[in-house]
Amino acid sequence: MSALLPESGPGDPGSGCQRSPKLRGAGMMMPRLVPRWPAWLFCWRAACIQGASVRQKMWAGPSKIPGLGGPRGAWGTSPLVPRGSCSASSRTPEVTLTPERYPVRRLPFSVVSEDDLAALERVVPGRVITDPEELEPPNVDWLRTVRGSSKVLLRPRTTQEVAHILRYCHERNLAVNPQGGNTGMVGGSTPVFDEIILSTALMNQVLSFHDVSGVLVCQAGCVLEALSQYVEERGFIMPLDLGAKGSCHIGGNVATNAGGLRLLRYGSLRGTVLGLEVVMADGTVLNCLTSLRKDNTGYDLKQLFIGSEGTLGVITAVSILCPPKPSTVNVAFLGCPGFAEVLQTFRTCRAMLGEILSAFEFMDAECMKLVRLHLGLSCPVQESPFYVLIETAGSGPGHDAEKLGCFLEQVLDSGLVTDGTLGSDERRIKMLWALRERITEALSRDGYVYKYDLSLPLDRLYDLVGDLRARLGPSAKHVVGYGHLGDGNLHLNVTSEAFSTSLLGALEPYVYEWTAGQRGSVSAEHGLGFKKKDVLGYSKPPEALQLMRQLKALLDPKGILNPYKMLPTHA
Amino acid sequence: MSALLPESGPGDPGSGCQRSPKLRGAGMMMPRLVPRWPAWLFCWRAACIQGASVRQKMWAGPSKIPGLGGPRGAWGTSPLVPRGSCSASSRTPEVTLTPERYPVRRLPFSVVSEDDLAALERVVPGRVITDPEELEPPNVDWLRTVRGSSKVLLRPRTTQEVAHILRYCHERNLAVNPQGGNTGMVGGSTPVFDEIILSTALMNQVLSFHDVSGVLVCQAGCVLEALSQYVEERGFIMPLDLGAKGSCHIGGNVATNAGGLRLLRYGSLRGTVLGLEVVMADGTVLNCLTSLRKDNTGYDLKQLFIGSEGTLGVITAVSILCPPKPSTVNVAFLGCPGFAEVLQTFRTCRAMLGEILSAFEFMDAECMKLVRLHLGLSCPVQESPFYVLIETAGSGPGHDAEKLGCFLEQVLDSGLVTDGTLGSDERRIKMLWALRERITEALSRDGYVYKYDLSLPLDRLYDLVGDLRARLGPSAKHVVGYGHLGDGNLHLNVTSEAFSTSLLGALEPYVYEWTAGQRGSVSAEHGLGFKKKDVLGYSKPPEALQLMRQLKALLDPKGILNPYKMLPTHA
Repeated sequence: MSALLPESGPGDPGSGCQRSPKLRGAGMMMPRLVPRWPAWLFCWRAACIQGASVRQKMWAGPSKIPGLGGPRGAWGTSPLVPRGSCSASSRTPEVTLTPERYPVRRLPFSVVSEDDLAALERVVPGRVITDPEELEPPNVDWLRTVRGSSKVLLRPRTTQEVAHILRYCHERNLAVNPQGGNTGMVGGSTPVFDEIILSTALMNQVLSFHDVSGVLVCQAGCVLEALSQYVEERGFIMPLDLGAKGSCHIGGNVATNAGGLRLLRYGSLRGTVLGLEVVMADGTVLNCLTSLRKDNTGYDLKQLFIGSEGTLGVITAVSILCPPKPSTVNVAFLGCPGFAEVLQTFRTCRAMLGEILSAFEFMDAECMKLVRLHLGLSCPVQESPFYVLIETAGSGPGHDAEKLGCFLEQVLDSGLVTDGTLGSDERRIKMLWALRERITEALSRDGYVYKYDLSLPLDRLYDLVGDLRARLGPSAKHVVGYGHLGDGNLHLNVTSEAFSTSLLGALEPYVYEWTAGQRGSVSAEHGLGFKKKDVLGYSKPPEALQLMRQLKALLDPKGILNPYKMLPTHA
Repeated sequence: MSALLPESGPGDPGSGCQRSPKLRGAGMMMPRLVPRWPAWLFCWRAACIQGASVRQKMWAGPSKIPGLGGPRGAWGTSPLVPRGSCSASSRTPEVTLTPERYPVRRLPFSVVSEDDLAALERVVPGRVITDPEELEPPNVDWLRTVRGSSKVLLRPRTTQEVAHILRYCHERNLAVNPQGGNTGMVGGSTPVFDEIILSTALMNQVLSFHDVSGVLVCQAGCVLEALSQYVEERGFIMPLDLGAKGSCHIGGNVATNAGGLRLLRYGSLRGTVLGLEVVMADGTVLNCLTSLRKDNTGYDLKQLFIGSEGTLGVITAVSILCPPKPSTVNVAFLGCPGFAEVLQTFRTCRAMLGEILSAFEFMDAECMKLVRLHLGLSCPVQESPFYVLIETAGSGPGHDAEKLGCFLEQVLDSGLVTDGTLGSDERRIKMLWALRERITEALSRDGYVYKYDLSLPLDRLYDLVGDLRARLGPSAKHVVGYGHLGDGNLHLNVTSEAFSTSLLGALEPYVYEWTAGQRGSVSAEHGLGFKKKDVLGYSKPPEALQLMRQLKALLDPKGILNPYKMLPTHA
């Protein structure tokens, strides 16, 4: 069985604009009405119920609840466009060439000749792109911070075509930049100089789906959102979900070991990816596209390529295990008086919601300020220093509502949460998720963004944010913290009117040294790409770097695959 | 914080005997009584309720249920000893030396000299074992099918001691056999010739445990069961559980990428292991012992060592993510009229139990016959062609019981299940699990066992068993099939009075070719070790074998780590 999936824009950030609220909704599992859900729990101030018994609460109907209906009116009119992309393009018409901003020198690869173009044309007839206008978007990352000068983009349809291309480039010593949806955050998916761009955009076939095991096998260029829709129609969901789903390719997700919103529940791709087909630097096809949940025959080679950001091989097909689609989903959006309360809410949540917890996200008051300021979204609860978004996904609507109800009562009564609102229908769930998912977009509208994606011990997760506010003072426009708290993953972002070397100097290496001091990770889920490759040493010891270099030399002796990325420039 | 955990027997199979029913119980989460559970559901014949309404069923009390109290009386007196071990030793006093049964030639490693012993004594004073009697158990696998002739066993306590040992052995070209609990199924943990045995038995310290994140960091020699008890006392469970838990070491579990009984729920070690400390062949210490749930800085080196069976490096410490301990556990043991019904029961189960399903195991009637014959266990339900064991683990006792009740009613009414019994208290849960967990022990008492651990597509999972019964006829004593159905993992076992070359010839390569024909795996969870290394090619293409050899050459250029294992003898 083979099904053609909709093609994303040719790797351009703008194509993310196609991501509509409906599609985010499709990711939600048609939650049912929960009759046992007490009205007073949907949205009310904890202040109202001090000392009130459950009975008294039951008497209080929605009409008595303050703050309902008002600001939320803005919701319906607020369009959900994808993070950053469109706004970014309107903000900065031109992006500085990467070698002009960053200290990097071209390696001695060959330059694409007319003969090369003719040879490549024979491999992928009519799919060798050389038109400068068509080449502009794939040369620029969607954050519009790096820009390459590639003169050629290839759009293979099959693994064999990819194999021929790499065999040829390997012989000719031509550098290659594999590219999926080009939604990377660290300049890993765009060329640095004139690397040939190898786009997976036309490799968008579902190869098979097994409706009992939930194993999906597809080409690397399938757009994540299209795959989500495909498997949801069959009673399953993708084990990963992220803001860029409307543009990102599954091959890119695997190549960057994408984390996202469902990792807390379904674990990392290292566990859910069952098999890969990879074309290696010399054009050899490595077929490890098994659909087996368990296979202990030899070294697990696919793990080499998961998270290797296209530097060890080009992923051409993926076999992935999809979890059954939960029959009911609820989202609670809560306000917390402090970060200590956020952590305590997480502990309580894990204990009381157990197996139905599917996401625990947090954002600070600055984030809320920015989504209101730049996107016109309004805060659905009383203003608080911190906000928490909790999603449950389960197979028993009544059971889940009961668990969530008890949990909310507990955190509200104990003062861990000062206000909360709940979404159990598709529209409201989308609206609540938008507050968290569109922070990146709001930030990109606020100015130049310095992005840090850190893994830190839970109890120190937010310390760095306050620390930086004090350190940077007025030189920073905004310093915000949000992220996947359930995974110990902080997204720390700093904005300024324009790129400032002095501000960058105040941020780096300070942020990396602080993180290393906590034995954290300087890249939790974004990878290293081009922009973060030189900070690898903050999270890994020299012996590890040495072995990584040896692996790169073994799998890509000429270094033609995604050069200038992932591994530090200097030994 | 550092805690000393009980030491297992010095890697000897017999040490498995220490595993008492109490300990299996410790793995269970003190299930509570479920008031909403209708008595009629605990055990009754579907035949009794044809056409009966729920109301009528409710009237029928336990006293009216046939088959209660009878055979189950045998339960209390039936001791739960670990699989295989004790019986095996009593069965075969002497094990043929590996090179006498298998075609294998010693590689040109150095032979341990008096000077070597003196040098090693300086590294691990008083922990260099050369007494032939002490060396007997670690030279033999617990299935008693292979036997090495090692003259030296070393028992380091620290990573630095392991580093010194390997640096020395690397310089002297001495072969090393890393050994944990020596519970492997494929002869991977015992020497083939005179390799030095490097035991992790004294490396049994818990290094840290975080009671919010559930991240456990410990030395490689910690016994799985001891770790289970340690984390359960703190409100968590280990993400893996297997029959050999009383002896196996966590380092060995990771080195073999052990699957076991909880993989269906918590996924593979490739997702739950967060970090590793490994000593490489030349004594270099690779410290990737991070406790972070997410870390995308560089290639994920730990994955190289997970499942590499000690051939690429020696794991000295493990960081692993422990799931919160479920507050309630239920086990249902069901009889099915055919394998088609087993599969349909699994489909129904996944749909109706959703997130609380924690195990789905199956066994055929021959397995039940053997546990009755050799262990005196009695079948708790009506005799059936197939039996299914379903475990649920959740955070809401009432909710779980309700889900399980609806599911059981559905499968009983539809005829997918002809009889069923339930365990909700610790003792009964252990008894029901024993029927499944002690099959291996019963088999080892039945004669010589030919073991196959296969991953197959669900709908073909059982075909090979019937196929072999027809093919082998009376030349086989028993042909049985059981395993982790939820993971597509079949344990196919054939017994005969004694080892028979002709029977082996009828089994191999037939079983492997059949499996390859289904694109299955010839080793789902046991690994390849020594006995299966030459069948790797049935599940992996030549390009993969080539890359595996290159990785071995890169990480262990002299090939001193666990030689004669994992990779095929011939190119």
